Amino acid sequence: MDVVGVLGGMGPLATIDFMRKVLDATPAERDQDHVPMIVSCLPRIPDRTAAFRGAGDSPLDAIVDCGRRLESAGADLIVMPCNTAHLWFDAVQARLQRPMLHLVDAALHEALALAGPRARLGLLATDATVASGLYINRHLPDSTAPAWLMPTAGEMLEQVMPGIEAVKAGRLDMGQALLAEVASALRRRGADVLVLGCTEIPLVLDAAACGLPVVDATAALAREVVAHIRRC
Amino acid sequence: MDVVGVLGGMGPLATIDFMRKVLDATPAERDQDHVPMIVSCLPRIPDRTAAFRGAGDSPLDAIVDCGRRLESAGADLIVMPCNTAHLWFDAVQARLQRPMLHLVDAALHEALALAGPRARLGLLATDATVASGLYINRHLPDSTAPAWLMPTAGEMLEQVMPGIEAVKAGRLDMGQALLAEVASALRRRGADVLVLGCTEIPLVLDAAACGLPVVDATAALAREVVAHIRRC
Repeated sequence: MDVVGVLGGMGPLATIDFMRKVLDATPAERDQDHVPMIVSCLPRIPDRTAAFRGAGDSPLDAIVDCGRRLESAGADLIVMPCNTAHLWFDAVQARLQRPMLHLVDAALHEALALAGPRARLGLLATDATVASGLYINRHLPDSTAPAWLMPTAGEMLEQVMPGIEAVKAGRLDMGQALLAEVASALRRRGADVLVLGCTEIPLVLDAAACGLPVVDATAALAREVVAHIRRC
Repeated sequence: MDVVGVLGGMGPLATIDFMRKVLDATPAERDQDHVPMIVSCLPRIPDRTAAFRGAGDSPLDAIVDCGRRLESAGADLIVMPCNTAHLWFDAVQARLQRPMLHLVDAALHEALALAGPRARLGLLATDATVASGLYINRHLPDSTAPAWLMPTAGEMLEQVMPGIEAVKAGRLDMGQALLAEVASALRRRGADVLVLGCTEIPLVLDAAACGLPVVDATAALAREVVAHIRRC
């Protein structure tokens, strides 16, 4: 069975959440049935959102260093349970030996399967993920482009980013309250399905808290990993 | 900051629980404040309890292989969040380059601090951990040996081992019910403090469920790791 390299630490709670979702997606009766993983949880990687804004160092070298550690430890494929880090996906893949699976593709597959052809997708994500077009400019083969609804600039500044930072600091109640307000606003503005496009967000929000169906990008990547490993 | 190598996969849920407890024990405001970890979660390691019974292959070579993967990935010290695996602790340490911290020592330190000098400690653990004397024969410098209370042979066979196996298979409710019965029996027989000496057990039992103070060996090791890293 192939060994999955999990390039984590962005942040550590999201890494643990991803590992848990891999276990949840695996039919297993005993330890030995589970997906083999090697995990780097080295949180000194420079902040991805700050780098995108031009306000901090690029995380690229640190991400590649983590990927090479995973390769040294025997990983056969590599995934990054961090949406914003996917701004550097192509650059990381070019410098690693092992193939990588793309988190946004996994999330878009699930969103389009859930929402159907003419659906309006809401997006909750960091300002770097939203502004870079990581989701809205990523087209899957044979997919019709969905309509996207985004938080306003004010909601990004006052609720989404402070909500994500609260989760990273372990203040889950505050994070949930801030993020749930924006989820409700996107629902009122017509979203049919909400894509939780930052790994911190599904730690505190689910469909019940949002009042509409959600796609958890972390869980989508976990299911894609388990399906890939079971095909090998 | 040193990188902690977590030699996990025994089982995978316990590995995740340990990582979470390291985060919980770390004062952190942002990703970059957290303890750097490299984690092997390679659950094909032969069953430790079966090996101790003579009913399965030794896990030693597989554990050493995981440790060497962690060393290749840059770990500076190594911990094993699995009590029963500590039956092979000295043999693993002898074949690795990096120092290891001992889970049972971390748990005994907390148990003796909590229970005081003449306390009676109950032990919930696998039959290999109980029968090998991993806890009861491990003496800390300057400690007075505590009195130990163990489950009966029937309780081990009918409740403790099936409870642990239920947790490993994801049947947490069943595991909790089986293990809580034995915790109550140990309390009735006079235990002052209960040592949860198998990493699966604190996934489903805490002091409230047991009706007496508990020492969670997983959390004790996590706190020891954070204290060690912050001293470096």
